[in-house]
Parts: sequence; C-alpha cells; structure tokens
Amino acid sequence: MAQKLQHITDLAEILFAHGVEDVVISPGSRNAPLIWAFYKRFGEKCRSLVDERSAGYFALGQSLITRKPSVLVSTSGTAILNYAPAIAEAFYQQVPLLVLTADRPAEWIGQQDNQAIQQENIFQNYIKASYSFPVESSNSDDLWMAYRTINEAFYKTTSGNPGPVHINVPLREPLYENLPEPTENIPVLQKEKPESMLPANSLLRKDWQKAGAIILVCGQLSPDKNLKETVNKLAADSRVVVVAEPLANLDNEIGLTNPEVILNSKTQYPKEAIPELAIYFGGQVVSKKIKLFLRELKNTKFWFISPGEQLIDTFQNISGHIQAEPLSVLKSLNAQSTGTDSAFKKFWKKEKQNATFLTEKYNREIAYSDLKVFSQLSETLPDDAIVFAGNSSIVRYLLYFSQKQRRYYSNRGVSGIDGCLSSAAGLASKTEKPVFVIVGDLAFIYDSNALWNRDLPKNLKIILVNNEGGGIFHLLKGPSQNEAFSPLVNAHHPVDFKKLSEAFGLNYNLCESESELKSSIQKSCKDSDKAEILEIRTPNNGEPQITKNFFKFLNANYGKKMDNA
Amino acid sequence: MAQKLQHITDLAEILFAHGVEDVVISPGSRNAPLIWAFYKRFGEKCRSLVDERSAGYFALGQSLITRKPSVLVSTSGTAILNYAPAIAEAFYQQVPLLVLTADRPAEWIGQQDNQAIQQENIFQNYIKASYSFPVESSNSDDLWMAYRTINEAFYKTTSGNPGPVHINVPLREPLYENLPEPTENIPVLQKEKPESMLPANSLLRKDWQKAGAIILVCGQLSPDKNLKETVNKLAADSRVVVVAEPLANLDNEIGLTNPEVILNSKTQYPKEAIPELAIYFGGQVVSKKIKLFLRELKNTKFWFISPGEQLIDTFQNISGHIQAEPLSVLKSLNAQSTGTDSAFKKFWKKEKQNATFLTEKYNREIAYSDLKVFSQLSETLPDDAIVFAGNSSIVRYLLYFSQKQRRYYSNRGVSGIDGCLSSAAGLASKTEKPVFVIVGDLAFIYDSNALWNRDLPKNLKIILVNNEGGGIFHLLKGPSQNEAFSPLVNAHHPVDFKKLSEAFGLNYNLCESESELKSSIQKSCKDSDKAEILEIRTPNNGEPQITKNFFKFLNANYGKKMDNA
Repeated sequence: MAQKLQHITDLAEILFAHGVEDVVISPGSRNAPLIWAFYKRFGEKCRSLVDERSAGYFALGQSLITRKPSVLVSTSGTAILNYAPAIAEAFYQQVPLLVLTADRPAEWIGQQDNQAIQQENIFQNYIKASYSFPVESSNSDDLWMAYRTINEAFYKTTSGNPGPVHINVPLREPLYENLPEPTENIPVLQKEKPESMLPANSLLRKDWQKAGAIILVCGQLSPDKNLKETVNKLAADSRVVVVAEPLANLDNEIGLTNPEVILNSKTQYPKEAIPELAIYFGGQVVSKKIKLFLRELKNTKFWFISPGEQLIDTFQNISGHIQAEPLSVLKSLNAQSTGTDSAFKKFWKKEKQNATFLTEKYNREIAYSDLKVFSQLSETLPDDAIVFAGNSSIVRYLLYFSQKQRRYYSNRGVSGIDGCLSSAAGLASKTEKPVFVIVGDLAFIYDSNALWNRDLPKNLKIILVNNEGGGIFHLLKGPSQNEAFSPLVNAHHPVDFKKLSEAFGLNYNLCESESELKSSIQKSCKDSDKAEILEIRTPNNGEPQITKNFFKFLNANYGKKMDNA
Repeated sequence: MAQKLQHITDLAEILFAHGVEDVVISPGSRNAPLIWAFYKRFGEKCRSLVDERSAGYFALGQSLITRKPSVLVSTSGTAILNYAPAIAEAFYQQVPLLVLTADRPAEWIGQQDNQAIQQENIFQNYIKASYSFPVESSNSDDLWMAYRTINEAFYKTTSGNPGPVHINVPLREPLYENLPEPTENIPVLQKEKPESMLPANSLLRKDWQKAGAIILVCGQLSPDKNLKETVNKLAADSRVVVVAEPLANLDNEIGLTNPEVILNSKTQYPKEAIPELAIYFGGQVVSKKIKLFLRELKNTKFWFISPGEQLIDTFQNISGHIQAEPLSVLKSLNAQSTGTDSAFKKFWKKEKQNATFLTEKYNREIAYSDLKVFSQLSETLPDDAIVFAGNSSIVRYLLYFSQKQRRYYSNRGVSGIDGCLSSAAGLASKTEKPVFVIVGDLAFIYDSNALWNRDLPKNLKIILVNNEGGGIFHLLKGPSQNEAFSPLVNAHHPVDFKKLSEAFGLNYNLCESESELKSSIQKSCKDSDKAEILEIRTPNNGEPQITKNFFKFLNANYGKKMDNA
C-alpha cells in the first residue's frame, strides 16, 4: 500500500529532477509536510521568508535570472493571498513561478476553523493554470494524478508564454509525521519543443520583402544572446529602425533606445518618418510617446509575434499575428543591405542624434534635482551593471539617458510599486554581480519587508531617491491643481530611512547635495560585506519643474535641432 | 445630457446619504476621479494610506467599531490585490467593507498597458458580491445602473451576515477633469428589516423545553448590549452552561470563559458533563479543546443560528439550522429557573472554579516567560480596556486568564498574522479609549507598514511580545523535533524594534525582566501624545517549557482538584 504522504515526498523529487533550483518557504504549520519534503530534497536551496508578499516577489526575481520556476511554499489562509500581487506580476511579465499552497482538506473549508478559506482557483484571474493536489496518496490512482499534476504544472510554467501556476495542496493532520522515501523510477516527463518555421508562402515574409520602411518594436525582454544577434542583423537592414528601450535588453546603440526623449508628441511627422510595416514582440514598452505615435499609424501594417494565442493589440492597429517564439520568426527574415540608409532610417537616426545632443546639453547645466540624479546615475553606474528599476517615475527617468550595456529589469507586467525591493533581492541572490535597485521613497517603505531576510544578498545595492513621496504626481498636470492632492495623494508620513535600514541591519549612506552625488554613487558601486542603501535626498519634491522644463526645451528645439545638432 | 462622471460624484453622495463614515484612500492616478469625489463629499473623513494591504486592514478595523462599511479606494493593478488578505478576513469575520477599485476601461485590459489586470470578479472566492460600474454616465441608463449598483452594494455589506463587497470602477482618461455637482433627489434606497419570530410549533423551542442540560456556545461576536442581556438571562437557567471566550464580548463571568484551561482532553467526562442540547452562533471559537469536546458528543442535538444560509458545522454534529439573527432567536427562548443548578451546571461551575484556582496557583510561582507576561497583562491592563489580540499564540495565551470586562477583538475570520497592527490602528481611530494591540514579533514586522500613517491614533498602544519569532512553533511537539524547523521555520532575521519604531516616529519603551514588567505595562496604560510601543522581551523563545508544564500541571491535578479546590 502506498504511503499517505508519498505524493508530497515525490512532489519535491520530481521538481528537483526537472531542474528546479530554488524554493522560497514561508513558515507555517499546515505546510509542514511540504517544508520537510523540500528541505530533504533541496537543502540549502530552500530559503525562509516570513512575509508572503515579499516572498512572492523574491521568487519572481530569482526566476527572472534562472528562467525556471522558483517554487513558493506557504501555509493556508490569508497567507496565500499575500502572494497575489507577485503572481499577477509574474503572469503579465511572463515569468515562471510554481505556487504551492497548503490547505485544509476540502471538508474543513467554511466550517469556521482556523486559516481556512476557499483556496481552489483563488488566483484564477491572473494565473496560467490551477490544480488541486490529492489529499493523500493511499491509492495508486492518487499517485497517478499527483505525478501528472506535477509534470503538467511544471511544463506550463515554462512553455509558450511562461507564467505562474498554482497547485493547492490539502493536508490532513497529523502534520509532523515522518515522510516516506522517494518512489523509485519516478515519472519525470520529458518534452520536446518543435521549432517554428514560417511557411513557404509566408504573408509576413512577403510584407517584409516589399516594405520600404520597417519598424521593429521590442518590448520588455529577458537578456538573450541569440535574440540580440538576430535583432542586430535585422537592424543593419537599410529599411529597418528598431525601437528598444533598455528594458528590451538588446544592444543599447541599436536604434530608438529612448523614444520618450526622441519623439515629440506635438509634431506632425513628415512622410519619411512613417513605417509601412511594424513588427512588435516582447512585453510592455514604457514610453507613452512611442505608443501614441504608433497608434496614429492607420496605414501601417502591424504584425504581432508571441508564443501565446492572445491577440495583444497595444498599438490599436494589429493586422497579423504569428503564434511562435519571436526568435524563430525573426531568424526567418533576411536583412537587406543596400549600403545606403533609407529616408526613413536616416530620419530617425538624425532624430536620435538630436535628442541625445539636446539631452546632454540640458542636463549639463541643471541644478540638483531628480533629473540630475538620474543623469548622474546613468553616467556613473558600471557599464555592465545589472539594474532593477522601480516603477512610476523611476523607470521613466532612467529611459531619458543612455544606459550603455547594462542589463535592465523592472516589474513592468503590471507596473506596481509593491515588490521592487523583494524582486531585486531575489534577482541578486542568483548572481555574483552587483544588482542596483533604484526606487522612490514610497516604493521603498511599501516593500521594506524585503530587508527582513537573514540572507539578504550582499551584492544588493539599494539606491533610494527620496523626493518625499509620489514624485510622479508632481509631474502630472492634473493632480497638482486639485485640492484633494495635497492631503490625500502627496502628504504621506515621513520616515527616517537611516533608522529603518539599520533596523534590518543594512549599511546606510546618505547623499544630500550635488557635490556628493557622484562620489556617493561610486562608493555604492564598491563591494561590501552586506547589502547597502544609498539614500539620495532631492529638494522640493525632486524639483519637478526642472523635468517639465526639460521637455519644454526639447519641444522648443525640435524644429531647430534638425539643423543644429 | 448627463455628465460623463456624474455617476462618480453620485457614488460618494449616495454612500454619504447611507451613513458611511470613513473612506480609506490609497494614492494613484487611475482613481483620481474617485479621490476627488470622496474628498468633496467626505472631507477629513478621507484618510490616505499608501500600502493597500495595511489600508485594507485599517478599514476593517474601523468597520469593527462602526459596524458600517468603511470604503476603500485604490488605483488599478497589483494595488488592488494587496487588499485581498483584508477582504478575506472581512468575509470570514463578517465585517462590512466596500471596496472600490479604479480600473482601465474593459477594452484596455490585456493589451500590455500600464497597471491593467483582469479586475472583474477578482476577489470572487472571498467576497459577498462583485459589481462592475459603468465606464461613464453619458446615458441615463448608465446612471440607473450606477445607482442600483451602489444601493445594492451598500446593503449587501451590512445585511444578513455582513461582509465585503467589491465595485470595480473603470475610468477613461482624462482623469483630472472637474467633477459635476451631485444629482438632486438622488435615489437613496431605504430598507426595512422584518424581525424573525420562531414559529408556534418551533422545533428548537421544543428541544429547549425538554432538555435537561443545555450548552450555549458563543463564538466571536461584536459587543452588543442587547445580546449580552439576553444571553445573561438564558445563563441564569439552571440547565444552561454558556461557553463564551473573551472574544464573544459577553459577560466575562458568565460561564466557560476559558475552556482551553478548564477542559482536559485526556479525561473521559462523566455523564453529568454531557449536554443534551447545544446551540451555537457567532464566529470562530479559539479553544481547540472545546471543539474536540463538542465533536465527541454524538448523542447531543446541535442547533446552529446564523443569518446566513450556509450550514456551518464546526462541531461535526449539526442537526438543525435557523436562518435568523441570533438575538431574535435567543429572545424567543425562556429561561427556566428552578433555583437549583442541574448536575450538568454544577459540574461545569466546579470545573471552572478548579481551573481558575490552579491557573492562579501555577502562575504565581513561574519565572519570567511568555506565560508570565500574559498573566501580568491580564491582571494589569485596565478593566475596561479595548484589546486587539494578535493571532497564533497571542490570542491563546490571553484566553488562559480572566479578561475582566474588556472588549476583545482579533482577526479570527481567517486567523492570519498579516494585518493585526493595521486593524488595531483602524479600530483606535474610531474610539477615544486606549486600544491595546498585543502582537508577537513576527506579526509586528509583517505589518509594520501600519505605522506608516501620518494620523496614527495616539490612543494606539502596541504591546510587542518579542520571543524571537514564531513562539507557537515551540509549543507544538512536531516542529521542534524536525531538522527543517530550525533553518526554515524558526530562524528569522533579527530586527531592531527600537529603530524600526522610531523610523516611523513612535514612542518606544522596553521591558526585559520581570521586575520591570508590571510598571512597564502600567506606564503604557497612560495617555500619551502619540502612539506608543512597549517591547517586552522574553528569554529563550519565551520559555515554552513553562507553558507546556502549565498544562501538565493542570492535567496532573485534574483528578485531585475536584476535592482540593
């Protein structure tokens, strides 16, 4: 007869065989058999984080590097709902995650017993798949179902568009029994992935051959050497302009890397600026200006490439979809090089040159402000740094400046501020290189439980830009004119970041003026014995007027710069 | 023609007319029209809390006092998922809450645009009802739907078993336009609630008349003067024994107020200890021993009274259900008083007396430990204090001792540790009296963003029992014998609570020894100019052996105490 908890032992065993690397456990009683099983199999690869919200984002950060699902293990009840934000982010950012939630057996739900809620399908709006594990494995059919579930769940996290998958694991008392040894010859399903080839009479290939002006729009992407090479080849095509913000993790000189600065929303673009064909792939594009520009192109043909079957029509012009890996499709296209750039390509090259010139010119002379800080950060961080960008204004500011060959991450699936530090900590735990996470003061406090981690990676470098809350709201015209803004949106509770950081045992440094700025950043780039925080305080809410004037300056010089730059 | 945002202005207006008192806003852009509408109507009754997880629990704490739904207002995306734990707790604790989530219009969902997730029905596993608001009110049918939705949503939060209700509010840009004035003669639905009367030939009343031994099991309840009087009347019946832990907020001398100490799980109870009839109502009972005792009673008839239609069979013996307010049903029963207690009642009175005697005897002599701390807290806190009990071991320790006439709250709907401080802060914001929230160190850090509140009520008194993490696990036999326990369950990251508290601007006090214990608690009972924290550090993980020996002592004296006490 099979053992009651054979399926729990084997769950850890099969995931180990599939190459899962990391397990993030949050303490509890109901999940004791899971904790025990994973500890036996994964040993020190198991980490313990108490706050499930932070644990969820930490696991997501690990998966960003490994591209394999980190495993989350929690007890039952509200604990699991604290995973929800990270699961939603993983779903929309397409990051693999495997969420295991201990549960009471079904018969105990809704009976006013402890930590019991309806956990089945609880994440259904933002999860790739949900499973219920058998409550015990005393029958061989239970094991059959358990193995099938584990194998399928693992594969779904990584296949097609990767994403989070949930297995709810009901467990009966007693919870602290010994576990059986792993089953021998346990079924670990193999899977082979056919390559996608465009058909001989491919519509996309025809469009590609005949178009005189092509724009390749790359959304957020994981660093991928092959993809980078392929995009570089296509970028050499004399008709092709590439849009690739730093978050695309492609070559940073490749094309329109800072569309927010290059494009001018007030201008009517000349005919030569308009592509005939647009191909887009990857996740979100940050720049609102490029989105607005592309949405206006009613005579351009838009192809969308994605392994998923959803039609994502970000630019409101979709006319074709290819369900395949972007890499395989892009490889099937040939770069045409005539030796001379098309008028289209020339136009955008010049625009980029002008914008870069104007950006440098404006930023050389400005006073100490948020804009200055990001200009300096972009200049000073190591050329090959790993950067995790906070949301809201942070990620936008970074994109105004050249980001060299750095690798960029950011929670741009849903763009919440809630898990930046934890995600960056998880990411840092999977690399030896320093990881710079740049966040605003609200995001820092929101996720300060990221610091509640016995093994916080010492290569984690937190750069906190403290402009006293919600800098983005000062940049928007609406809120600063509304009387509810001041008491309800901007006026947050001031916090002593030195004490907060030291409460969790981190090294703390402060920069309060322009004269300290460069050296503070340089100092934070050095190796240290534990995780560090550099608080950069900027005056007057970061001097939003300096940022606003930057765009006025760009706009004012837009006509002129054509000739001057 | 109606204004596009007329329904947003009128949403605030109708809720104000219904008597909603409090609005908890988390800053964002998408929710700007909601922020503006509520600020115009509610003014300073709007509070701003950045962390939605904490905001959710804060609102729940307010509703615990007002018994009206506090309104939550958030932006779109992962922000709303941070409400999920508080919503689940409100659902199972039956606390009214009205959750308003701003959203992008439906056509923008899933298009890789900012902060857009599938928000409709997102809380469906743990919400009373979910609605979608019209995206604008340019048509009079939109307004008809909006008014109907608001009225129905408000009523559902408070009728039957109260609970959380969600309205998803899609909003189009521009988000910072002026709002129209409120509609005149706006429809504010009235509702009349019929009283429930037991029928003439009531089965319950027959059972009540003929039973010789009756147990009335009161779960967690809001303080309610009428209910207290009614239960007191029934408690005078010579056949009736009442089970009412402090969380029932009934008379604290009324019957079995500390079943965890009174009952002995190892004993076979004599015939006179067994009730013929059991009636239960209210929320969760904390004591595991009373649950186990009642679950053994296969010859006792169990009636469950609740305004909801769910059959909640906590004691695995349900044989009758009355869907009505417990108060109205209990009022329909007559107390029989013969002047002499039944053998049943005598038995349990004596048990209680014995247990109280033994508890006092044991606790007089013990060393400084968690048990000592709770014994002292129970003795020293003001007799009429409001106490918010943390989960896990805290609420259990408190129930070992007499809690006098204090009012007791605790998140016993799902019993998570995640929102205790925030709930207590919300509760404190609605009363002038001091509110003592007693939490362990893990729960304190987990919810430390509760302190990130510009208007943290100065009557909030935090008593932090720091036994270095997860005290409950040391009390269980299983985990302390398992090798995964130490690295994964118990070994958390140590935190400096003084710095953490001061980072948020609170007064901090420390108690490290028995000699300071009483005076520290007394000091924390005094008025202060801002919220205060008293950290009570206990040695060796709170000395769990002293607690274990307490129960050994009770067990060992169980046979004897009958005669001695």
